[in-house]
Amino acid sequence: MADITEIRQPGSYSYVFSPYPEPVATVDPGQTVAIHTEDAFEGRITTEQDLPSKVLGSYLNPQTGPIYVNGAEPGDTLAVTIESIEPARDWAVSVFVPYFGGLTATQATRLLHDPLPERLYFYELRDGVFRHGDRLAIPWRPFLGTIGTAPQLEAVSALTPHNHGGNMDVRDTCPGNTVYLPVRVPGALFYTGDAHGSQGDGELCGVALEISARSVLKFDLIKGQAIDWPRIESPKKLMTVGSARPMEDAARIAYAELVDWLAADHGFERLDAYQLLTQAGEMYVGNMVDTNYSLVAGIDKSYLS
Amino acid sequence: MADITEIRQPGSYSYVFSPYPEPVATVDPGQTVAIHTEDAFEGRITTEQDLPSKVLGSYLNPQTGPIYVNGAEPGDTLAVTIESIEPARDWAVSVFVPYFGGLTATQATRLLHDPLPERLYFYELRDGVFRHGDRLAIPWRPFLGTIGTAPQLEAVSALTPHNHGGNMDVRDTCPGNTVYLPVRVPGALFYTGDAHGSQGDGELCGVALEISARSVLKFDLIKGQAIDWPRIESPKKLMTVGSARPMEDAARIAYAELVDWLAADHGFERLDAYQLLTQAGEMYVGNMVDTNYSLVAGIDKSYLS
Amino acid sequence: MADITEIRQPGSYSYVFSPYPEPVATVDPGQTVAIHTEDAFEGRITTEQDLPSKVLGSYLNPQTGPIYVNGAEPGDTLAVTIESIEPARDWAVSVFVPYFGGLTATQATRLLHDPLPERLYFYELRDGVFRHGDRLAIPWRPFLGTIGTAPQLEAVSALTPHNHGGNMDVRDTCPGNTVYLPVRVPGALFYTGDAHGSQGDGELCGVALEISARSVLKFDLIKGQAIDWPRIESPKKLMTVGSARPMEDAARIAYAELVDWLAADHGFERLDAYQLLTQAGEMYVGNMVDTNYSLVAGIDKSYLS
Amino acid sequence: MADITEIRQPGSYSYVFSPYPEPVATVDPGQTVAIHTEDAFEGRITTEQDLPSKVLGSYLNPQTGPIYVNGAEPGDTLAVTIESIEPARDWAVSVFVPYFGGLTATQATRLLHDPLPERLYFYELRDGVFRHGDRLAIPWRPFLGTIGTAPQLEAVSALTPHNHGGNMDVRDTCPGNTVYLPVRVPGALFYTGDAHGSQGDGELCGVALEISARSVLKFDLIKGQAIDWPRIESPKKLMTVGSARPMEDAARIAYAELVDWLAADHGFERLDAYQLLTQAGEMYVGNMVDTNYSLVAGIDKSYLS
Repeated sequence: MADITEIRQPGSYSYVFSPYPEPVATVDPGQTVAIHTEDAFEGRITTEQDLPSKVLGSYLNPQTGPIYVNGAEPGDTLAVTIESIEPARDWAVSVFVPYFGGLTATQATRLLHDPLPERLYFYELRDGVFRHGDRLAIPWRPFLGTIGTAPQLEAVSALTPHNHGGNMDVRDTCPGNTVYLPVRVPGALFYTGDAHGSQGDGELCGVALEISARSVLKFDLIKGQAIDWPRIESPKKLMTVGSARPMEDAARIAYAELVDWLAADHGFERLDAYQLLTQAGEMYVGNMVDTNYSLVAGIDKSYLS
Repeated sequence: MADITEIRQPGSYSYVFSPYPEPVATVDPGQTVAIHTEDAFEGRITTEQDLPSKVLGSYLNPQTGPIYVNGAEPGDTLAVTIESIEPARDWAVSVFVPYFGGLTATQATRLLHDPLPERLYFYELRDGVFRHGDRLAIPWRPFLGTIGTAPQLEAVSALTPHNHGGNMDVRDTCPGNTVYLPVRVPGALFYTGDAHGSQGDGELCGVALEISARSVLKFDLIKGQAIDWPRIESPKKLMTVGSARPMEDAARIAYAELVDWLAADHGFERLDAYQLLTQAGEMYVGNMVDTNYSLVAGIDKSYLS
Repeated sequence: MADITEIRQPGSYSYVFSPYPEPVATVDPGQTVAIHTEDAFEGRITTEQDLPSKVLGSYLNPQTGPIYVNGAEPGDTLAVTIESIEPARDWAVSVFVPYFGGLTATQATRLLHDPLPERLYFYELRDGVFRHGDRLAIPWRPFLGTIGTAPQLEAVSALTPHNHGGNMDVRDTCPGNTVYLPVRVPGALFYTGDAHGSQGDGELCGVALEISARSVLKFDLIKGQAIDWPRIESPKKLMTVGSARPMEDAARIAYAELVDWLAADHGFERLDAYQLLTQAGEMYVGNMVDTNYSLVAGIDKSYLS
Repeated sequence: MADITEIRQPGSYSYVFSPYPEPVATVDPGQTVAIHTEDAFEGRITTEQDLPSKVLGSYLNPQTGPIYVNGAEPGDTLAVTIESIEPARDWAVSVFVPYFGGLTATQATRLLHDPLPERLYFYELRDGVFRHGDRLAIPWRPFLGTIGTAPQLEAVSALTPHNHGGNMDVRDTCPGNTVYLPVRVPGALFYTGDAHGSQGDGELCGVALEISARSVLKFDLIKGQAIDWPRIESPKKLMTVGSARPMEDAARIAYAELVDWLAADHGFERLDAYQLLTQAGEMYVGNMVDTNYSLVAGIDKSYLS
């Protein structure tokens, strides 16, 4: 383990998933590396005085990347297995950002209300539990909030989840699982960031338990097989992630992709897959706060044998 | 147990949740009864020849009710504990109904496509598993797809879920859990039906494993406490159900109701409840096919102590 | 004109479009009658002290009806030509109702904000203009905010627009135009109310220039021709109204219905109608505040010859 | 007029609105130029054999730009007056593209249907009318379907409308009107393309009467005044454009921006502006087919004096 490559973002951060910039590192298929990521606020919120409206600007959710995967070409699929996520500090922060969140007027759902109060919640991480005050005690259940590859054409904000992955904020991009991502440009140009120490479904106020982290990821390449949207495989489940607005479009994408997956790789006639998912599919809300909502459809592998 | 009251729908079925009709039975708070329900098609689909387009008309999803709860008055809450659900037959049916379902054009999402093919899936229930052909084997996990009380003013189709409960199609209205429903008219006028032998999240094609059933329910009354939307309590969790379109409105309702519940009954300041649910809330899609989508927000009780 | 029938709501108002209640009047096809309607608040807001949160309850938007149309049977279409609307008083009122409107959190779009301020706007109607203070001067452009027939099965709140018509709040249900409504129960059971002295597209705050009125309507019957959603014909245009959430579903319904209309009655192949509406269709937002949003699709008749 | 600058896209087209590329031309505030634009298909559809599924790829909706505006800095507003649009050819084309349009399953609203038929409609432009066959005759009413400035950070597909303008497909970006666009990067980096010979509200099938064109535009700069979303001024009206999904979010944005405009520049208290727009606002659907829907809110200037 002494010789694992440690990838840190040199110089400035990436705030977009973009096909254009120079890679910060290169990996080979089959290689395992450790990736260091800053928290979603770039570490600018550390005290009660650091109100979001004061310390945050347009540049949010810094990513480590792009990482160039040797041999990856458009039409391939990148398989990234998350082996571990370790916190790089012993605390996390969540905040209420004005006009951002699931139960507030936002830039997209524009209303005439004043913003909800800003408020900061610092949590201490001790013995695997995040604690804030007497009532809030949240177990360490880390995942990578943002993970994806470069789009073909656009440079997409690191705040946006879409068919390239990105800011999906779904709890299954976690240790033990493999994330499948489309390769749309040479080298795939992988990015990740926004590690969460824990998060409920929906990331309700818009900000999870934000941490800086060191994550160990193994990169593999599936040549000549394209996917349209991100997929996740856990030891027990197959999952697909749809990101769209309104939320029902995210749900439709996730389940339609899972229908296609079962049809292509598991021998189900397409309408039979539709029937199976009707009776045994699972679907949770990953985020209900980002520029697209992300929903996760899943099926237990026991149904596929 | 010999003397439990057995409630069957006499005469014709109820196809609306309505404040107007005569009750079919009366129960006392504290009483446990057995309620018999027909399947959502009123038993009209039993052979491969019974295509939905031929045998189904406007009258769908028959309910057993209304059941008058003695002493229930507007402003109270009805607590219905589902003690058991037993199948009344050894088979279930699911079908693809033209222009109905989660991955098809519908009456609400009107497009120019021809309908998807009609198709019937009959399942045999044996040893706790529903089987259809070689590939489909779904465990017995029953719940009541439709359960609710009369609205104050409207007569609402039994196909619609809303703040009176109704056709929510959420898997947690199941044995072992208590469903809290608003009382909006004298006697509450409780209805239930649409028992499902099993169902995946979202009820993707619109039709679960439809069965006729005998369900044992205990009725309790919480006097002088009103709720705006249905709630569910399991041994481990508190849950709220929001039903609306677009789906994000259902999600907002469910989580906003859970914020209010934690604030009212569990000593959380409202914004702290918002924070807690951000980090530890759960949210799954109950249905993505009915006239309103139903989403379920939940929190493990361990966070509330 | 001395002998035109004047229809007033005897006794209590209708707050639902319902197939059940006793008609308040009967009309013959071909007959012209005058219908008197109260304002949407039943006249309870007349002074600055009449805050909505104080004087309004659950019973809103009173309708005059049901009116039984002799000979109308399910499967027919009712054609109602609005010949005139006269104000029954020389003032109108608009108000900001807590948690109701287009730019506020609502009961459906549930957020954690406090409500916007309540505020009352009384307008004086003089010389065809509604005036409030120095800056607000709105011309008299009356229409019937709510107009429809009974649904087949449900009793639908007078606040809801759907395929029976109802609370569409679209400015083309105005003098000179004919409104086509589906007949779903014997006698059609026509209702109308909610006259607006004027209203912008969307009815943005949720409350137009609410007036009591006397409207002269001519009733005709088209036997054996069913329509699925309300239609409107002006001297120059054909229009269809879709009411749904999210708003794009209302838009889809309205245009899909217009495609069907052009195909059925104007000799267009269905995809050619789709093409024509792409290049020449019109679509405005009727309401963006009610329980369903109503959008109006239209086509100038000059394209149909 | 002999010396007006003619701007043509040299080399390859722009398919994104991007802050990064080299400008193709530079203009001064106050300058009037003529901009040549290709049709949305880059001229690849000219015969019945040119089915979209065959001749179109990922690169769509080519833009002429970026055009650097001297002196424009972030925080300014660019005012572009469209003086004229002339067709560069005597025909237009519209097509049904698989899984694209307002009444079909799409990449965003994913369903299991087969695509609608592909079909091409070529129109001849003669005497100010586009004609196709016997039934389709559409008057010349040109506008620029796509017009905008570079976003601050992202490179946004030329198919997407958002707060930078872009592919709004609203009929009021037409001769005689001034389009106000936010300046987010030095030089504004203006792009335009996608000229439409005519289009109905919503651009229902997704493809208007696509033409190549020469448009004369005058550029002005409003220093030190920022806007968040595009605005349009006609001789009679003030308008704002909101682009989002679901459609109600586009409607909210458009009207909220108009409230802010009336408050900032026309002396209305904010809630009074909300009231005025309730009674006199206008709102039509620009597009219901693009990656965001665009709605236009408007107010007649006569209300503002």
